[in-house]
Amino acid sequence: MSQFSIKFLPDDHAVKVEEGTTIAEAARLADVFINNLCGGEGVCGKCRVQVIKGSAEAEDQAMALLSEEEIRNGYVLACQTEIHDDLEIMIPVESRAEESQIMTGEAGEVSEAERIPLVRKIYLELPEPTIDDNISDIERVNRELRRKIGWHSFGIPLHCLRALSEKLRSNDWKVTATVVRDIRGYRIQRIEPRDTTSQNYGIAVDVGTTTIVVQLVDINSGKVIDVEGSLNRQARYGEDVISRMIFAAKKDGLPVMTEAVVENINELVEKICERQDIAGDQINAAVAAGNTTMSHFLLGLNPSAIRLDPYVPTADVYPHVLASDVGIKINPYGVLVTLPSVASYVGGDIVAGVMSCGIADSGQIMGLIDIGTNGEIAIGNNEWLVCCSASAGPAFEGGGTRCGMRAIKGAIEKVEINNGTVEYETVGNARPRGICGSGLIDCIYELVRNGIIGADGKFNRDSGDERLLLTDEIPQYIIAPAEESETGQDIVITESDIDNLIKSKGAVFAAIKCLVDYIGLGFDQIETLHVAGGFGNFLNIPKAIAIGLLPDMPREKIKFVGNSSLAGARMCLLSEAALEKCLNISRSMTNVELSNYKPFMDEYIAALFLPHTERRLFPSVKY
Amino acid sequence: MSQFSIKFLPDDHAVKVEEGTTIAEAARLADVFINNLCGGEGVCGKCRVQVIKGSAEAEDQAMALLSEEEIRNGYVLACQTEIHDDLEIMIPVESRAEESQIMTGEAGEVSEAERIPLVRKIYLELPEPTIDDNISDIERVNRELRRKIGWHSFGIPLHCLRALSEKLRSNDWKVTATVVRDIRGYRIQRIEPRDTTSQNYGIAVDVGTTTIVVQLVDINSGKVIDVEGSLNRQARYGEDVISRMIFAAKKDGLPVMTEAVVENINELVEKICERQDIAGDQINAAVAAGNTTMSHFLLGLNPSAIRLDPYVPTADVYPHVLASDVGIKINPYGVLVTLPSVASYVGGDIVAGVMSCGIADSGQIMGLIDIGTNGEIAIGNNEWLVCCSASAGPAFEGGGTRCGMRAIKGAIEKVEINNGTVEYETVGNARPRGICGSGLIDCIYELVRNGIIGADGKFNRDSGDERLLLTDEIPQYIIAPAEESETGQDIVITESDIDNLIKSKGAVFAAIKCLVDYIGLGFDQIETLHVAGGFGNFLNIPKAIAIGLLPDMPREKIKFVGNSSLAGARMCLLSEAALEKCLNISRSMTNVELSNYKPFMDEYIAALFLPHTERRLFPSVKY
Repeated sequence: MSQFSIKFLPDDHAVKVEEGTTIAEAARLADVFINNLCGGEGVCGKCRVQVIKGSAEAEDQAMALLSEEEIRNGYVLACQTEIHDDLEIMIPVESRAEESQIMTGEAGEVSEAERIPLVRKIYLELPEPTIDDNISDIERVNRELRRKIGWHSFGIPLHCLRALSEKLRSNDWKVTATVVRDIRGYRIQRIEPRDTTSQNYGIAVDVGTTTIVVQLVDINSGKVIDVEGSLNRQARYGEDVISRMIFAAKKDGLPVMTEAVVENINELVEKICERQDIAGDQINAAVAAGNTTMSHFLLGLNPSAIRLDPYVPTADVYPHVLASDVGIKINPYGVLVTLPSVASYVGGDIVAGVMSCGIADSGQIMGLIDIGTNGEIAIGNNEWLVCCSASAGPAFEGGGTRCGMRAIKGAIEKVEINNGTVEYETVGNARPRGICGSGLIDCIYELVRNGIIGADGKFNRDSGDERLLLTDEIPQYIIAPAEESETGQDIVITESDIDNLIKSKGAVFAAIKCLVDYIGLGFDQIETLHVAGGFGNFLNIPKAIAIGLLPDMPREKIKFVGNSSLAGARMCLLSEAALEKCLNISRSMTNVELSNYKPFMDEYIAALFLPHTERRLFPSVKY
Repeated sequence: MSQFSIKFLPDDHAVKVEEGTTIAEAARLADVFINNLCGGEGVCGKCRVQVIKGSAEAEDQAMALLSEEEIRNGYVLACQTEIHDDLEIMIPVESRAEESQIMTGEAGEVSEAERIPLVRKIYLELPEPTIDDNISDIERVNRELRRKIGWHSFGIPLHCLRALSEKLRSNDWKVTATVVRDIRGYRIQRIEPRDTTSQNYGIAVDVGTTTIVVQLVDINSGKVIDVEGSLNRQARYGEDVISRMIFAAKKDGLPVMTEAVVENINELVEKICERQDIAGDQINAAVAAGNTTMSHFLLGLNPSAIRLDPYVPTADVYPHVLASDVGIKINPYGVLVTLPSVASYVGGDIVAGVMSCGIADSGQIMGLIDIGTNGEIAIGNNEWLVCCSASAGPAFEGGGTRCGMRAIKGAIEKVEINNGTVEYETVGNARPRGICGSGLIDCIYELVRNGIIGADGKFNRDSGDERLLLTDEIPQYIIAPAEESETGQDIVITESDIDNLIKSKGAVFAAIKCLVDYIGLGFDQIETLHVAGGFGNFLNIPKAIAIGLLPDMPREKIKFVGNSSLAGARMCLLSEAALEKCLNISRSMTNVELSNYKPFMDEYIAALFLPHTERRLFPSVKY
């Protein structure tokens, strides 16, 4: 069989592979990360890559997920494309987004020096006891660990101690100790026969309200091996955290919520393990990042008081527990670390994001905005950190609007209106089924830029635009007419939708503005503003600025970071220092409770305009 | 109903009680401790007290356990004697032995300043959260605990955290936290509604090879509430630790041994709880002291390597575990602390003893000898501690001799021979069934003093003593003839028995001598020698010296301490400092491995004589 040379750009990794290997497999062999949300099924379109040199054959099925322009430019899906030629392949930023933050990017990199992972495997060749050296078995293990780790004492669970005598003696005093860092020192988690140090895996889990993502990480190399995501199964009990908390407050409601999220994670882990042919037992640690409510659900803590004034969580620093205490199916004695929160509405996901973006290490002032159902904002540097949270409503995630939907196949994600002509693009290039958050932002920008709506979000009823329907009680504008749509219905944005979206963007911007004012800064003093969230990869930043969602800062100062929560969780698997930083961030970050902060309501009302009632805040916006 | 005034001596505690109350119950009301090994059944005879003023009616049944002389002197069993008069009651040292070491005695007292118990209950009245003070529930608890205890952070188990939100809110923010000191700080063990601080119990457990004793302790007052003991059920699998280790090494043998000891403890706890009408759930801690093998059995650790050169235990410092991890039926989240060992044959019982006797705090040199199947010896002061252990064989515990038995009813415990007349006393004044350790020591002393045996332990075959039977292969001496005995057989001591006993006493003395020589001391430099062990309360010290078991020291320097292991365990329940001292003792005490110490064999051989081949070592011995 022929062999072909494959080179991956931009990082210039090369590999030789057999004919017929997929590009995704070649990337794995070359230790190059490509997104793989659907697990190689060819349905998520997240692994698109551009073939720059050589020719590649793609499956027909996969082509449906690519635009014509993309196909013209040599884009293929890595998981669906077999290799029959020498190739040079460019991995676009969106296909390596998560990896680029962590393993190769600037923000979120774990340096070699900091690579003391949460769970370490240490191979021990112990001297056999003699009458002059007859310390106890565990002290013999401890002595050797002390030499290798330089820590004075190691806790050990009973199950480990019970098996120790036999394990040492039947393996010629050669064993591998799995050692985990816990809050107050090191603990032996496991003793295995002989040298098993080559197998040490962990999972990073982003426990999102909408989506749950699990990454399998090789703790030895620090590489992401695989990733798997799904919609959060809890959604059936309520779209947002508030409705789920209400559900959980009912009799026996909480265990249902906990089971839903645990089973969800277990399924994702199982899929990955099967695909990678790794025993779940070899996964020694899980680090989970989620908002405060999701973290409570995961651990089975009662979140009821989070919902009501004065918004009190059960805990913000969560105990490290055994994975099996919660029901997570990795090694039953593996540790589950849930990253600490700051307050009821600023969770471990934000702490993880702040850490992974390096804000707490930075000499310059940086910010992080994570936009979902809640908008959370953190600003600070290596000396101080301040954060706040505002309810943005479900509009940006596709809820609460007539034709809103999540950013899945058929969602209109890009819109342009020029001289009465509407052009749009959908996820997967499918027939349109609705509009997702990034599409809605585009819509509003295009509508106001074309004078179809005013700065107050109301339609100009005299425009005579044939797409503007005034017959209903609520005026609406057709983005895709019925004959183009999958549903056979017009896909529209209504005045009420626009109103909701303005409220959402108003809340997020007001929160940013309040926080900046609270600190006594100007936006110009923020060196870098990281934007994260479900739609981070698709968001058109200039348009988001132009509608007044993001502050009017130079474009190059705003940085996409994709899933910064997952990145942070992964870093904590790989680095004790990262976990320690998260703890410090959660302890030191000041939460400004906006519901209690008087200027917020004024800022919110001032922001209910496109882009804002105070135009001077948006000097670059020209419409 | 009439009331009577009762005064207990020597500590002069007074109490008024209703007519018909038992003396034992009156003692309890007066907070005076009286031994109660059988739990008030009137069968152990351990609660004998002397009525000095007033008249007391005892039950007939109880009289059987008292000697005629005792009855003449006003002795009664406290548990079997009802009060119908004003009384003055003297509690003899043997009936308050354990208490006197701890709560009222010199050695082993826990001072008020040191009374920070292992498990504390702290009542918290928390301020209700407000929007300006909306820290998490657990942080609110921690903050208040910090104020009260002055410790920076408290671990909390998941089960506690899960219930916290509801518990605080449904009890008006008034709860009681049970806080336990663990190896690396404080941990919250339990949160209860409202103020439950008045109920806080612990158990001290002496896990002996032969006997298991459980004491229920009121942690608030430091008082012993009740005690219950039984023969160790493991005995059915082997008399001594060696045979039990051999049993445990068989397939599935270890769990059988662990279950036996755990069930044994549970039964004792259950009896006490029933009697005292206390819920087992209110017992928040257990501290166990045992030799290294018994500690391994209790925790389910494999003891196999203890038995064989180079004598390596699995652990010497044992992890603190949940009682329910091992199956001990107190509060399932209660802690089980197993006191640390020094080496394979110097266990937590000796560490507890050294601590409770105050040896490690003393400016003067002190010693502890604990004689059982093994003789363990510790010598030291507040600067150094050295110990060793020698196998004494089962002779002192009634094993390995023709008519040997444990010190239970019918055992000959005292013997005197004068001009061919043998007088003896038995436990419970019953018809003799055999001879226990203290009786055997008396026998040997009396035989050699009367010239019936020589200093080599051999019978003087020409004495013509009619009690000496030379017809058998092994010469034997009748202590109680068949017509007096319960068994209808002569109760005898044989030349072979004497040989075994000389070997046992030789091993113990050789160990003491080696240790003293090793340190470079003379016996005269030891200020106090504590003697503990199963027969400690009955041992005739001058006779024990005269046969060469104990060193020839002034009588007033030798102190009975009864069960110093149990005393130490109880102190650790009541005092963090005591537990800390145990840990320090276990770490700092130097174990001299006698099997590896060349002079031991010479010392042993030199000691196989009555009292010793070197008479100058026993100047006070006159026969």
